[in-house]
Amino acid sequence: MKARVTVTLKTGVLDPQGKAIEGALKSLDVQGISEVRQGKFFELEISETDEAKATAILRDACEKLLANTVIENYRIDLA
Amino acid sequence: MKARVTVTLKTGVLDPQGKAIEGALKSLDVQGISEVRQGKFFELEISETDEAKATAILRDACEKLLANTVIENYRIDLA
Repeated sequence: MKARVTVTLKTGVLDPQGKAIEGALKSLDVQGISEVRQGKFFELEISETDEAKATAILRDACEKLLANTVIENYRIDLA
Repeated sequence: MKARVTVTLKTGVLDPQGKAIEGALKSLDVQGISEVRQGKFFELEISETDEAKATAILRDACEKLLANTVIENYRIDLA
C-alpha cells in the first residue's frame, strides 16, 4: 500500500526558511505570495494491508524519526 | 487563498536521503516500510482570488524557485 506523510511546523513556531523563500520570490518578481511555511513530504510503500495497522506503523515511524513532535505536526494519508 | 505545493523527485532519480530514512527506520525496529522518497512541502497564502490566475502565479514560483524541474515534479493544490 502507498502512503504519504506530511510534516509541518506547528503554529507559532518561527520558520526562517519560509521567510527566506518569501523574500526570494519577491526578488524574483513573483507577486502576491505570503506566509510561506516549508515542511517535509514522504512517499513510502508499506507492506501491511490493514489500514488501522498500517496507520499505527506509520505513526510509530513519525514519532520515532520523521517528525520532531515538539515543534512539528504530521499527517498520514493512505492511498 | 491558501495553497499547498508538493515537490517530489521524478521517477528514476535516485534518492539517497530516502534510502537513509529506510535504513534508519529498520534500525529503529519499524518494520514493513520500503521505497521511501523524500520531497518538499510548502504552505502559502496567495492574495489572488481567481483560481486560474493563482495557479499561474504558483506555477511561476515553482518553475523559478521551489522546484528544480530537471529532476523534480511539483503539484499545486488550492484550498
